[in-house]
Amino acid sequence: MATLRAAIIGAAGYTGSELVRLVHRHPELSLAVVAARDNAGKRLDQVVRSTLGVKGVGELVLEAFDPEQARELAKRVDVAFLCLPHAASANAAKALYDAGLRVVDLSADFRLKSREVYEKTYGPHPAPELFEVAVYGLPELHRKELAGARLIAAPGCFPTSSILPLAPLLKAGLVAKDGIIVDSKSGVSGAGRTPGQAYHLPEAAEGIRPYKVAGAHRHTVEIEQELSLAAGDELKVVFTPQLAPMTRGILSIGYARLLPGKTEDDCRAAARDLYRDGLVSVLDQGVLPDTLWVRGSARAHVAYAVDTRVSTVLAMGALDNLAKGASAQAIQALNVAMGWPDAHGLPEIAAFP
Amino acid sequence: MATLRAAIIGAAGYTGSELVRLVHRHPELSLAVVAARDNAGKRLDQVVRSTLGVKGVGELVLEAFDPEQARELAKRVDVAFLCLPHAASANAAKALYDAGLRVVDLSADFRLKSREVYEKTYGPHPAPELFEVAVYGLPELHRKELAGARLIAAPGCFPTSSILPLAPLLKAGLVAKDGIIVDSKSGVSGAGRTPGQAYHLPEAAEGIRPYKVAGAHRHTVEIEQELSLAAGDELKVVFTPQLAPMTRGILSIGYARLLPGKTEDDCRAAARDLYRDGLVSVLDQGVLPDTLWVRGSARAHVAYAVDTRVSTVLAMGALDNLAKGASAQAIQALNVAMGWPDAHGLPEIAAFP
Amino acid sequence: MATLRAAIIGAAGYTGSELVRLVHRHPELSLAVVAARDNAGKRLDQVVRSTLGVKGVGELVLEAFDPEQARELAKRVDVAFLCLPHAASANAAKALYDAGLRVVDLSADFRLKSREVYEKTYGPHPAPELFEVAVYGLPELHRKELAGARLIAAPGCFPTSSILPLAPLLKAGLVAKDGIIVDSKSGVSGAGRTPGQAYHLPEAAEGIRPYKVAGAHRHTVEIEQELSLAAGDELKVVFTPQLAPMTRGILSIGYARLLPGKTEDDCRAAARDLYRDGLVSVLDQGVLPDTLWVRGSARAHVAYAVDTRVSTVLAMGALDNLAKGASAQAIQALNVAMGWPDAHGLPEIAAFP
Amino acid sequence: MATLRAAIIGAAGYTGSELVRLVHRHPELSLAVVAARDNAGKRLDQVVRSTLGVKGVGELVLEAFDPEQARELAKRVDVAFLCLPHAASANAAKALYDAGLRVVDLSADFRLKSREVYEKTYGPHPAPELFEVAVYGLPELHRKELAGARLIAAPGCFPTSSILPLAPLLKAGLVAKDGIIVDSKSGVSGAGRTPGQAYHLPEAAEGIRPYKVAGAHRHTVEIEQELSLAAGDELKVVFTPQLAPMTRGILSIGYARLLPGKTEDDCRAAARDLYRDGLVSVLDQGVLPDTLWVRGSARAHVAYAVDTRVSTVLAMGALDNLAKGASAQAIQALNVAMGWPDAHGLPEIAAFP
Repeated sequence: MATLRAAIIGAAGYTGSELVRLVHRHPELSLAVVAARDNAGKRLDQVVRSTLGVKGVGELVLEAFDPEQARELAKRVDVAFLCLPHAASANAAKALYDAGLRVVDLSADFRLKSREVYEKTYGPHPAPELFEVAVYGLPELHRKELAGARLIAAPGCFPTSSILPLAPLLKAGLVAKDGIIVDSKSGVSGAGRTPGQAYHLPEAAEGIRPYKVAGAHRHTVEIEQELSLAAGDELKVVFTPQLAPMTRGILSIGYARLLPGKTEDDCRAAARDLYRDGLVSVLDQGVLPDTLWVRGSARAHVAYAVDTRVSTVLAMGALDNLAKGASAQAIQALNVAMGWPDAHGLPEIAAFP
Repeated sequence: MATLRAAIIGAAGYTGSELVRLVHRHPELSLAVVAARDNAGKRLDQVVRSTLGVKGVGELVLEAFDPEQARELAKRVDVAFLCLPHAASANAAKALYDAGLRVVDLSADFRLKSREVYEKTYGPHPAPELFEVAVYGLPELHRKELAGARLIAAPGCFPTSSILPLAPLLKAGLVAKDGIIVDSKSGVSGAGRTPGQAYHLPEAAEGIRPYKVAGAHRHTVEIEQELSLAAGDELKVVFTPQLAPMTRGILSIGYARLLPGKTEDDCRAAARDLYRDGLVSVLDQGVLPDTLWVRGSARAHVAYAVDTRVSTVLAMGALDNLAKGASAQAIQALNVAMGWPDAHGLPEIAAFP
Repeated sequence: MATLRAAIIGAAGYTGSELVRLVHRHPELSLAVVAARDNAGKRLDQVVRSTLGVKGVGELVLEAFDPEQARELAKRVDVAFLCLPHAASANAAKALYDAGLRVVDLSADFRLKSREVYEKTYGPHPAPELFEVAVYGLPELHRKELAGARLIAAPGCFPTSSILPLAPLLKAGLVAKDGIIVDSKSGVSGAGRTPGQAYHLPEAAEGIRPYKVAGAHRHTVEIEQELSLAAGDELKVVFTPQLAPMTRGILSIGYARLLPGKTEDDCRAAARDLYRDGLVSVLDQGVLPDTLWVRGSARAHVAYAVDTRVSTVLAMGALDNLAKGASAQAIQALNVAMGWPDAHGLPEIAAFP
Repeated sequence: MATLRAAIIGAAGYTGSELVRLVHRHPELSLAVVAARDNAGKRLDQVVRSTLGVKGVGELVLEAFDPEQARELAKRVDVAFLCLPHAASANAAKALYDAGLRVVDLSADFRLKSREVYEKTYGPHPAPELFEVAVYGLPELHRKELAGARLIAAPGCFPTSSILPLAPLLKAGLVAKDGIIVDSKSGVSGAGRTPGQAYHLPEAAEGIRPYKVAGAHRHTVEIEQELSLAAGDELKVVFTPQLAPMTRGILSIGYARLLPGKTEDDCRAAARDLYRDGLVSVLDQGVLPDTLWVRGSARAHVAYAVDTRVSTVLAMGALDNLAKGASAQAIQALNVAMGWPDAHGLPEIAAFP
């Protein structure tokens, strides 16, 4: 019997449908409620066709969740995953948290520790009083805080892929804290399910392009927060998101100046040390990551290479933006909060090819 | 604890690596042995990179299986999945079967019931004496024979996608037995893992093309065997395989003449009746299938539409060629042979998108 | 010096931007006017980024064409290409035709010869009096009527790919007139430039799917009109459009019953005879078409294979839906109308790969 | 009548087939000879299917070129394009040059100015005496030397995409000469036509990955040579090639530290100044490049953005690796050598989409 009954609020989008897939096979979770504003009243299998014919899932009817109904929802479920736009998410999170539920929020609303930075980046925050209780749900870096956490902020996809390879180097004092560049390429599903010219197949396939460069992307501050924490010092990064012609996957390459006397082996050793637990594989010397190898998987791959001619380290991270970059990591964080193993009920092996 | 220890012979190819993924999450199976001729001696994670860092899997060393070692292997495992070329597979199957193992063969060696048709199509068969004990592993059509089966012939990918939508119509006497056309489009992984000009990304992406048309493809006789069985009469089909610019998925459209007085609703009703059990979803009127909806899933989708102007029914089937079209169906058949539910331990919800 | 000054009305869509590309290199055409309703006032290179920095093209400002301004436009250009929705196109065509311009209409408005069929399919027609002067712009089949034509209806993409391989067989009496099935797969650009869920890269890449099957697609009647003309008899076809995960290209496979005594060689001979002129390559025995080979080219490829076991011929056609299936064929038809060679100023060699 | 008769040696590969496409439409070039070692004796349209049915092209028979036949070849053609592996190319170039032909070499053999660097990177050079006469065929930077050149070294694809955006900044003294990072993503056609595991569609689509990082890629020294020339000083770069899941296109992002007092506008102004002639479009402020916009085009796009928080400039370049990155640039350089306009006979507008 499942321990926790789960609600997925915002089940019609990509992180929501990925949660449906993952919750369905998790031995301690049961899918009790699905909600979606625009598609309320429809069966889930009309909106997420991958559930067609799957008993107990496809025939669920999407509800129209309103934060005012939080108390009633709290009677039907034990944990709520929120896949909502920012601000709307904070409103829902507050109501559900106050109603006693465990909440895993996949929006950006509780990721940042500084209200000032949040409001500068996203606008007014409807529930800043929860900043204190929210835990940044990157289990590999915040394992202790996650134990028992009732409000988990699932990290962004670009940040996860950028922080994982760089954090060990900064924590171990292997690289300079200034001059860090993060060049990231994401599959199109990272842009969400709403169609747009930039994601129209004829204009997105067979082309690669940068967007929101030079500090314009909101994930920049999230990356900076966590890397500053790792470095024990405020730092800034150049962050360049790019859209790659594929559905899933992020490859991030962080460039940093290796400090004198440090080596590529030191980088791998630092990462292996930090990631002894969790769902991060540190690749051997000479093995370079590929997003294909983690498609659909809860694991991230990190790898290192040093250009010794100019003492620069490439800190590379690959993951599936919807899995380790969003929904699988959300469940991993819940697993840790509940005291279960990180990988509990999660797919660790990608569907290859 | 797992009930059955499994060997995957031919683990470096695509059906093999898909089995690795599926066996890893199956509660009654444990991955005990992986073998691969060309890559013997390497760690599995050097060859199937999706297993990197996955404990108990990635570090397995690929063995060089020889049928003469069947008895030793039989001490270490309970069931063997064979992902080998035809003829080589029959040799291995015979040795393992004789050694007392349960064998699931993913090659074509035990799919055909007529030795004559087999040898005309594939050449000499090394173990024709096993034709009698082998069961065609399409659980939706051979459930009874599969109970307790010790030698299972997992069906081909094109055949599964073609037979599933057409068989109910022939069984129920809704369509003419002659004049059937099957137009199929497969993702490139169906061609296997060996590189070739036709599968070189620059020449396979952004193009769609037929190959081995007009009876030249070996799957033609397999489709004909099963549809003849369903029809209770020998029949022939035009089968047109095509390579579509994607990795996974097969869409097959069978065209048949609807008999007088029969309707589209009759088609759906016949399919729903036949597929009450098993892993086939029959789509509602007006819903057309999409291979994306079954990517990575053990389920197949079938749908029907009738062009009433010319009394022709379109019998459509969509599945993942590596999952329901190969490895997941192999496990489904084993599940049935063992008396477990069809979906036991298998992913039913596709990774969408 | 260019002989004809051209206007492209609807230049922001895909057939429009393809015309911009083609007109730019045509030695007898100069691009004088570009118009686009929603983007009027913008520079062309803001909307069609492929023209960035191209002198005389990128800096053209999109105009807001109104049929009432037809007379003024007639002073500035000699020929107008219309890339507009149906009905709107007929309105524009009439005004421009009456103003003395040569008009090439890429909409469906003047393709059908029967007003009744048109109105049943598309709704009321605003200028049915022009049905008589309009010529169906498939030069390989309507060469004589095209000579001097002032109103050309550029054929649809699916129809061109379906008619070209089948028409020679019907004209030469090689196949039965009933029971014809056309199974077609198109790249996503065929759906136009407006984004939608079905064309959103994450839901269109890595999936293939049928749509508007069983007579529901409007191109069905266009195919039937031209094949009936070729057969000298009314006929119906089953037409199954499918969306393939690529940008450009259509592969159509027509299935027809070969009449007794006729052979695959007869099919090729009939096609070679009919297509001695024009831009259709008839492939040799054993060579099967691939949409990649015609990407960006004004040529179509046709090929034949016969399944002698059941006397069925596969009549296969491959083309680029935006080139030979739309804009390049529009110019080819204009070339013929002007007395120039079919290929004049057009790309005959695809960009491979 | 065409002024120059051309031979394409190595016509069966991708840069060769792209030259076939481009030469066919160039008003001053005629395709006289095609050669290809492995496919000698076959018709071109058997090997490059995009030429099927194109008169004067498809039926050309591939010859087996041997440098010893250089004198005979010199009687039949005026210019030879070499699409051969390095070393083999230098041998052919020397023979043909000595026989009086104009030679455009698309290999790496005459790109580097330092024999030492060449031999360290590629091994022994068979004709170092030609280093002096060879001109690096990037017309935007070597216009004067190209005038009348008889041996042109067509630049590499990654170098062209990296040098074009960075050179103006270094020439104008806007950025620091150290600490430059070039992060590049290429379509798979850049790897050539020989199939391999890494380019097998199932393993190349839906994945993005770095390779030969940290100085291991041979294009590194070519980039450094030209940027050092622009900077007037020896410099080193970190160069990170990546394989993107698409056929054509390279996006390179150069990261450099903006010097105090310099601005993003200065960058664009420097590029506009340097690229007043040639085939480089400098995008306006806020417009970011996309490889789709240059697919099949002879033009490159460059753009700039500055992250003012850390004074770093992103110098972005997008081009088609087979066109501006190889074959179209080869013809552009020949155009300049002959005194024709850069764009003469070349496609400037991409096939969009």
